[in-house]
Amino acid sequence: MYRSHTCGELRAAHNNTEVTLAGWVQGVRDKGFMVYVDVRDRYGITQLYFDEEQTSKDLLEQAQKLGREFVIQVTGKVQERASKNPNIPTGDIEVLVSDLTILNNSLVPPFTIEDSTDGGDDLRMKYRYLDIRRNPVKKSLIFRHKVAQAVRNYLSNEDFIEVETPYLIKSTPEGARDFVVPSRMNEGQFYALPQSPQTFKQLLMVGGMDKYFQIVKCFRDEDLRADRQPEFTQIDCEMAFVEQEDILNTFEGLTRHLLKEINGVEVEKFPRILYDDAMRLYGNDKPDIRFGMEFGELNAVAQHKDFNVFNSAKLVVGIAVPGGNAYTRKEIDKLIDWVKRPQVGALGMVYCRCNDDGTYKSSVDKFYDQDDLAKWAEVTGAKAGDLICVLSGETNKVRAQLSALRMELAERLGLRKPNEFAPLWVLDFPLLEWDEDTERYHAMHHPFTSPKPGQLELLGTNPGDVKANAYDLVLNGNEIGGGSIRIHDKETQAIMLKHLGFSEEEARAQFGFLMDAFEYGAPPHGGIAFGLDRLVAILGGQETIRDFIAFPKNNSGRDVMIDAPAPIDEEQLTELNLKLNLKS
Amino acid sequence: MYRSHTCGELRAAHNNTEVTLAGWVQGVRDKGFMVYVDVRDRYGITQLYFDEEQTSKDLLEQAQKLGREFVIQVTGKVQERASKNPNIPTGDIEVLVSDLTILNNSLVPPFTIEDSTDGGDDLRMKYRYLDIRRNPVKKSLIFRHKVAQAVRNYLSNEDFIEVETPYLIKSTPEGARDFVVPSRMNEGQFYALPQSPQTFKQLLMVGGMDKYFQIVKCFRDEDLRADRQPEFTQIDCEMAFVEQEDILNTFEGLTRHLLKEINGVEVEKFPRILYDDAMRLYGNDKPDIRFGMEFGELNAVAQHKDFNVFNSAKLVVGIAVPGGNAYTRKEIDKLIDWVKRPQVGALGMVYCRCNDDGTYKSSVDKFYDQDDLAKWAEVTGAKAGDLICVLSGETNKVRAQLSALRMELAERLGLRKPNEFAPLWVLDFPLLEWDEDTERYHAMHHPFTSPKPGQLELLGTNPGDVKANAYDLVLNGNEIGGGSIRIHDKETQAIMLKHLGFSEEEARAQFGFLMDAFEYGAPPHGGIAFGLDRLVAILGGQETIRDFIAFPKNNSGRDVMIDAPAPIDEEQLTELNLKLNLKS
Repeated sequence: MYRSHTCGELRAAHNNTEVTLAGWVQGVRDKGFMVYVDVRDRYGITQLYFDEEQTSKDLLEQAQKLGREFVIQVTGKVQERASKNPNIPTGDIEVLVSDLTILNNSLVPPFTIEDSTDGGDDLRMKYRYLDIRRNPVKKSLIFRHKVAQAVRNYLSNEDFIEVETPYLIKSTPEGARDFVVPSRMNEGQFYALPQSPQTFKQLLMVGGMDKYFQIVKCFRDEDLRADRQPEFTQIDCEMAFVEQEDILNTFEGLTRHLLKEINGVEVEKFPRILYDDAMRLYGNDKPDIRFGMEFGELNAVAQHKDFNVFNSAKLVVGIAVPGGNAYTRKEIDKLIDWVKRPQVGALGMVYCRCNDDGTYKSSVDKFYDQDDLAKWAEVTGAKAGDLICVLSGETNKVRAQLSALRMELAERLGLRKPNEFAPLWVLDFPLLEWDEDTERYHAMHHPFTSPKPGQLELLGTNPGDVKANAYDLVLNGNEIGGGSIRIHDKETQAIMLKHLGFSEEEARAQFGFLMDAFEYGAPPHGGIAFGLDRLVAILGGQETIRDFIAFPKNNSGRDVMIDAPAPIDEEQLTELNLKLNLKS
Repeated sequence: MYRSHTCGELRAAHNNTEVTLAGWVQGVRDKGFMVYVDVRDRYGITQLYFDEEQTSKDLLEQAQKLGREFVIQVTGKVQERASKNPNIPTGDIEVLVSDLTILNNSLVPPFTIEDSTDGGDDLRMKYRYLDIRRNPVKKSLIFRHKVAQAVRNYLSNEDFIEVETPYLIKSTPEGARDFVVPSRMNEGQFYALPQSPQTFKQLLMVGGMDKYFQIVKCFRDEDLRADRQPEFTQIDCEMAFVEQEDILNTFEGLTRHLLKEINGVEVEKFPRILYDDAMRLYGNDKPDIRFGMEFGELNAVAQHKDFNVFNSAKLVVGIAVPGGNAYTRKEIDKLIDWVKRPQVGALGMVYCRCNDDGTYKSSVDKFYDQDDLAKWAEVTGAKAGDLICVLSGETNKVRAQLSALRMELAERLGLRKPNEFAPLWVLDFPLLEWDEDTERYHAMHHPFTSPKPGQLELLGTNPGDVKANAYDLVLNGNEIGGGSIRIHDKETQAIMLKHLGFSEEEARAQFGFLMDAFEYGAPPHGGIAFGLDRLVAILGGQETIRDFIAFPKNNSGRDVMIDAPAPIDEEQLTELNLKLNLKS
């Protein structure tokens, strides 16, 4: 054993105890005749003390030469500190060192190992092993472990069985791109890495496993946006003999347990909202309901006046910004610039000040009188002192734009409090969504989601109107989980695949095994999957997932620390029956 | 909810309760005026009862038409059975059905869903979802979950942190073949799937995580032998600031906990044996010590007589087979044929009967008298009634042959009891092993294993003699875990890689990031990895791992259920900058 205690363990009660510690040199304060060294490990920091009188001269000199991040082992006696540090748990004591061993040297690290480091993102990623020594990253990884453990223990206690499904599976053309793995033994053939264990968990239900879960890596070869990773972790769950209500209750239980156990927050029964209402009230299928600012649709009160911008719009919709009347004209102009940015894409913004004296002042006073504007205030719920922001245009677009504005303003107003948790179920998602690029319908969730009872017939006539037995769990404006009740009979699955554009042969080739399974007594079943990376980040009060992943990849899918991906040998390629076919 | 209770839940105490059950039809016993249906789910089997008097005629007829594996939902009243079945937990009751719904039909399954099925391996694998409904498979998967949970809870309580390491990493030429994953975004480059998270867990130690574990999938593209899978699961562990003794104690603790919690078996402190002694006494680095039959080396007592076979051998070695003198001449001849099979490869076998009257009768009486044979008995520990089996030849080969014979005989004698657990640490493995094919030394464990203190110099002169800080945990003749204290300084790692035949450039390209990390304060560290599939099978008292894996692959690495691997689209290949290069 290299140590008798950790660097976070010693207290005043240990005074006069002889101890051995091991860890990294956080810093050396050399006062000439005495030296303070802070030694750090996963558990904390302890002050080491060397002085000319009580320590040998040799030892003092050794201590003076210690560099940052040297790995040392020391033995000495715990003593009370002359000046205590109330900011750290070991702040009452120090160790008067009698023996010092340097276990390993260190070059000067490329950035400081401190809570606020001077290392930029690139350096931090290249030297991730040093970054992990920093408290914020270290704590995030430990936090992630605690969340995963809490999930596993909760679900195990609820009789769920964690079953490992395979990673080397079969490529499917539906959805995002697969990562593939050439097979050496099966010439010209490829495995695919799973985008999710979807079909396997359904087969486990057919197999009678009843309650399944798995915390599992999934893979998507997509062009990466910020804060997306090619490999990500899912809490994947499925249950048999259940209806939607059972799934909602079970996983509301899990989420409530996590909020309590991890964050110490008690949450009442989660509110539920229909997808259509979420879109109408928040312009968004994952609304942040920690604050109000619900949409007010103004068509009835703002159209049929002489303002053509509104008259020609499919939707005129506004929100009341609490206290927004305090904004100067300049600030409002900046807000208008903000909504006109290409990322948001509005053509303009109409606003209306709600003055303290009960009068209104809008940017379109030419067309609307005080009575008109009072109706705007009524519909948007604006009170004296607020600002009403109004956008107009094509329904889906204008909702997305106003949703972006709502989130931006809430952020600026400090309404998105990281320690407040507002979960929400969004129900009755559409079964299909229209894809502009391919000009056809895609499964909004996936091809195994069941339509609402009685809506199967609508598929032929009004496919866009068909609602699914699909639900999302939203937390603070993020989708943390999504799932559905699945199709469990072969006929419905065949109809669904046909509507998604699969020929009978394609359906057979891709999903034959699942359709076969449905013929041997498939029970009704459904499930949900949580994105663990995102869930952990939100529970941890953070916006980005990256520090909750030990070794993340950058936006080009590269691991810059190990320098992967990388070319492989010609020999290896030949063995895999492959040749490069480079474009450049 | 499709049910009020599970099919394994009802007892006499539920009599007269109205219940709803859902599950699969296990069987229908039609007595004409009454029908018994067994309904099954994950939790058990419940008898349903329909009769002409108490049930409607309609319902009775429906029940009569139920097929095996139909999915049904029934409502009815619990009542005492006329004739109880003490073999199942629900055997005291039955449900008098008042309502029956068929949730799904089933074709006649290709094999029976019973403990002993009539399905051969191929059918079972193709319809694995049906196979999983069978008790032995279902129970094995649940057992696996319990073991994994016990591991996680134990290690978490011991302050270990589960950290997820990446699956898309970099190919390394050392060891077994990697599965690779072409990168679309990084033209001509490939990720590799990890054979183990070895370097990442070492980097976590450099990063100060101190105590790491992970239950994680690993991948090896090897020609598959029986009972090997291209993807397998490891319990991967690493600790910083530890010596070998600390690792042994920690993971002996884990293993003891599992034996207690899972098997209810208390095991004393695990015995330890040196690798050299294991080879000498058992001819094997993973000896099964549930029984004796230790090797006795007979060179001193059997050479220098007139028997040239022995005289010319490097090693003459025997075992005493308890009670083996009962074998007939014919049985012994069969044993000799057995050791001469190509899989074992001995040229012949000498034997010596130990008669009850204290005399000996050997197959080489021409060369050895009673005194000589008495010495054989003394060295091998043979007693009256035993049979001494002696092999001779080149040391390594003859040890392997006698080890095979020892295991075979123990199996036949019933000495390998599945419910007896005999763990054993094997210590001080050689650092390197000679590879006949490539005519060079390979790392026996992996290139990051540290040599025993002071033996680094031997690497230049007697590489085969260098011992490593490496250890295996053996359970009942299977290696269930293996690990080592790692190299943690750049110089030693460089020397090691050089001796393994890496040029400086190759070492830099492959392991540069690790060697860099060693320069920034790497702590002493070491670890171990357990093969979860094998561990679970052994704790479950089974010889093969396959039923402890939900969806295993066959010996060609195929998943015959989903029919993977499979060809992919030309378009997908082009996008990955690849072309097929088929040999056939």
